[in-house]
Amino acid sequence: MGAGFSSCSHTTTFFAASTTLFPHRSKSNFSTFNPHFKLLSQTLYYPKPTKITTSRSSSSALSPINSGGRAEEMKTQEEKSTQPMSDLHNIDPELIQRMAYDALVWTSIHGLVVGDKSVPRSGKVPGVGLVHAPIALLPMSFPENHWKQACEVSPIFNELIDRVSLDGEFLQESLSRTKMVDAFTSRLMDIHSQMLENGKREIEINTISASFPGLGSLVSELHRSLLNQYKEQLGLDSRRIPRNAAVNGFAEALAKAWEEYSNPRAVVMFVVQTEERNMYDQHWLSTEFPFSCFPQLCNTYDVTTIRKTLAEIDEQGVLQPDGTLLVGDQAIGVIYFRAGYAPTDYPSESEWRARLLMEQSSAIKCPSISYHLAGTKKIQQELAKPNVLERFLENKDDIAKIRKCFAGLWSLDDSDIVKDAIERPEFYVMKPQREGGGNNIYGDDVRKSLLRLQEEGAEENAAYILMQRIFPTIAPTYLMRDGICHKDHAMSELGIYGAYLRNKENVIMNEQCGYLMRTKVSSSNEGGVAAGFAVLDSVYLN
Amino acid sequence: MGAGFSSCSHTTTFFAASTTLFPHRSKSNFSTFNPHFKLLSQTLYYPKPTKITTSRSSSSALSPINSGGRAEEMKTQEEKSTQPMSDLHNIDPELIQRMAYDALVWTSIHGLVVGDKSVPRSGKVPGVGLVHAPIALLPMSFPENHWKQACEVSPIFNELIDRVSLDGEFLQESLSRTKMVDAFTSRLMDIHSQMLENGKREIEINTISASFPGLGSLVSELHRSLLNQYKEQLGLDSRRIPRNAAVNGFAEALAKAWEEYSNPRAVVMFVVQTEERNMYDQHWLSTEFPFSCFPQLCNTYDVTTIRKTLAEIDEQGVLQPDGTLLVGDQAIGVIYFRAGYAPTDYPSESEWRARLLMEQSSAIKCPSISYHLAGTKKIQQELAKPNVLERFLENKDDIAKIRKCFAGLWSLDDSDIVKDAIERPEFYVMKPQREGGGNNIYGDDVRKSLLRLQEEGAEENAAYILMQRIFPTIAPTYLMRDGICHKDHAMSELGIYGAYLRNKENVIMNEQCGYLMRTKVSSSNEGGVAAGFAVLDSVYLN
Repeated sequence: MGAGFSSCSHTTTFFAASTTLFPHRSKSNFSTFNPHFKLLSQTLYYPKPTKITTSRSSSSALSPINSGGRAEEMKTQEEKSTQPMSDLHNIDPELIQRMAYDALVWTSIHGLVVGDKSVPRSGKVPGVGLVHAPIALLPMSFPENHWKQACEVSPIFNELIDRVSLDGEFLQESLSRTKMVDAFTSRLMDIHSQMLENGKREIEINTISASFPGLGSLVSELHRSLLNQYKEQLGLDSRRIPRNAAVNGFAEALAKAWEEYSNPRAVVMFVVQTEERNMYDQHWLSTEFPFSCFPQLCNTYDVTTIRKTLAEIDEQGVLQPDGTLLVGDQAIGVIYFRAGYAPTDYPSESEWRARLLMEQSSAIKCPSISYHLAGTKKIQQELAKPNVLERFLENKDDIAKIRKCFAGLWSLDDSDIVKDAIERPEFYVMKPQREGGGNNIYGDDVRKSLLRLQEEGAEENAAYILMQRIFPTIAPTYLMRDGICHKDHAMSELGIYGAYLRNKENVIMNEQCGYLMRTKVSSSNEGGVAAGFAVLDSVYLN
Repeated sequence: MGAGFSSCSHTTTFFAASTTLFPHRSKSNFSTFNPHFKLLSQTLYYPKPTKITTSRSSSSALSPINSGGRAEEMKTQEEKSTQPMSDLHNIDPELIQRMAYDALVWTSIHGLVVGDKSVPRSGKVPGVGLVHAPIALLPMSFPENHWKQACEVSPIFNELIDRVSLDGEFLQESLSRTKMVDAFTSRLMDIHSQMLENGKREIEINTISASFPGLGSLVSELHRSLLNQYKEQLGLDSRRIPRNAAVNGFAEALAKAWEEYSNPRAVVMFVVQTEERNMYDQHWLSTEFPFSCFPQLCNTYDVTTIRKTLAEIDEQGVLQPDGTLLVGDQAIGVIYFRAGYAPTDYPSESEWRARLLMEQSSAIKCPSISYHLAGTKKIQQELAKPNVLERFLENKDDIAKIRKCFAGLWSLDDSDIVKDAIERPEFYVMKPQREGGGNNIYGDDVRKSLLRLQEEGAEENAAYILMQRIFPTIAPTYLMRDGICHKDHAMSELGIYGAYLRNKENVIMNEQCGYLMRTKVSSSNEGGVAAGFAVLDSVYLN
């Protein structure tokens, strides 16, 4: 099988309140929200999350993001300012309470739910211990031109990641030092090497499986519904919330990949954790929805899905001589990973055996090992170096667009930058190479860590990268958790979902297919990706 | 305002395994299921809840229900027996577990949920402490000709109840003795008398608000979905589960009533209990459903709904000189009662004041006092007497159809029947006059109670009626509660929902608009309406 599949996701950040665009990877720091949040590699955009307002003050703070961008942007703002907008933070508290009640009802009857961690069985048994997903009560204002740019760059990133994943030599070489300091990446690379040796250079290609296509899609529906219901009071236009078709796009991509596998009896296997409170997000992809316009797998595509843990796959999995993977007597056509990104998902050799078994099989993997490796920060950093993008992309416009997203990302081998970071640590963030750690280093700890690394020698350098620190605007927002609506200071991140599917000959699908807006409480006013309570949100184009 | 409205329900029972048809009222004995289950007056049909089977043995046990019925029925069975059916009780346990898992996922993401009583806030705050509603895993087999008959008789019952409710004299006279022994009915009658005195003879007419139009509709969708998904394994045809449009019908009826009120600023008010774990069933009627084909109020009709307790209505309600009811400055067009049927809903005079206030207003009430009174068992018993139906209906066919449903219902003034019941108490049930009590008397207690009443004198007789006892077939069924699927012995009841709306001149709506199948664990093998754990179910036409 030469089919490839990707339901992903890029690695750029646009920071609306700065003149530079920074690369940035989403982190697994959604832990307050969901302890099982998986790697979500996506384009992250930081809006200016201030109130929706008629004044131009907030929009004028936005920076041009390409040549001529300022003029274009100002025009857009001018056009928009003629439309009525309310100051959401002067809303009558009683109205807020009514909207909050309606939002809670909406979540309950539309499946915008997660497992409640205070109920022991809620991560294992569906239907018990349900609680509404943490959400923002209202959508977040976001500049329309940045939104368009984010959507435009999505397919280019898909293509780039695909081509990087195909270049085994580049991956192995770029990660050779990382391998020495990061045991987890090292294990992944071992599997990757084994595939290369087996002549599987053009193996199936995929990328990181992102969380929340299901629940994220619902939040934009909820917000659209509230804006319609309270149109008079809010004066907002629900059509300015872009449709979020992530769940459709993902289901379509999985179904098309399954078609490529060409075995009508094969199933789609979801690789899951043993406990998963975010299971309903996953089920939105795999379960039919009889009243729906969503093209879910069962209903629209007549594809059967099964759910297995890595340990179960090791126990029940058998590889047939022709490469077919059987799990419990069922042929697996497509493997969709919603587990396996964090070292904690591999408590024993059993899980690693399962991962290798799947990689050796002819099943279409989302992601394959090479995609998994292509998603590491080190690769991102390599791509940011001069002339590296040209190795993978031909179109100069595309290269320019991607390069804009790659400013402000450095290796610790760059002594000028390290020197500057020791002197002005407040402008940098140190990030571990591997995704999912969530242990970013800020402030004076950057200085201390860099000095320690300098003493200890260069080896450890490879485990970290330096990034220009982002200071997104912190603004009051209505957040809802556990049935309670409270106002808090928060910041937002926009991620764009993409789906990419290619077989040996052709690209079958390469689409921007949805988004995820996350709004986080800035508990310490630290800015950046401050750890803290996060909710699902949607975008209001401004 | 001369508009009337009914979202109801009748009072008949067809017992499939007997040659007689018994009248029977649904009881509030859903307590294991939901402590706030309200009066559900509806036609109840007892199917033979045995396994779905290819043999004719179960169907041949069904009785003719009209002249020529037997022949017709046998023909239907013959035609149907050519279609494949599985013996559901020989299903592979692993398949049962897979279906149970899928059913639990389905309930969670489609809002087939209730409040979990182990979570304190679950009856007050939406979105927290959710758990799937108790359901049967698979639909209950039911004879198609009985189904058709049940649907056919529904509009006739609507009309009958409407006409009875208009006959204030009949209501007061029939209930004069009940008034002396039942304090709750007595209070209702006082309000009714006051309305009659005020010349409100043609007041708004409505009937009992039935529970579960929302969740009941979902269960048939769930079962249809499972039968589709496991078509190969089960060999059942999902099209034999009738569409359950109860939520559509109720929403349409409420919206049409609101239109009749002719005040675009008026709202629909749901009268609710202070704690309500079945709130999502109610919200299905009042909340929009953006992906749906359901005509809910907000979405399709642009009608605003509010929720108030009786105490809140007393506190915030004001009657304007023109009869308009204002609650918190909002004009009330339609009042939909989901509380106020049980004496416990009136802990103080405040709640009674609220009930009177609403009755005095021009709002369209569902139900009005006269409909509430028309739903008492005593009225049913009066209607069963010779020549009483003729007072309300002209069409002889209609009268015959209704009369068939009124066999086996007697007053305690009928000395022959009382004598027989003392001798053979096992064939009778003693029921309290008032709905919602749930304290039916069975077995030897019938004899004791009748003897006690004979000693105490005739006054107390009026508080009870005697009914022929029904012995429905008990059969093993898969029931799901709290995330667990277990096989138990159970019996089922079918109720038909009707919606009826009339203004002074015309009947605007008179439809059979859905059904509710409830399956109950027969804990004691007592038969009849044995108290016990009950689940929501659907119908499989056989």
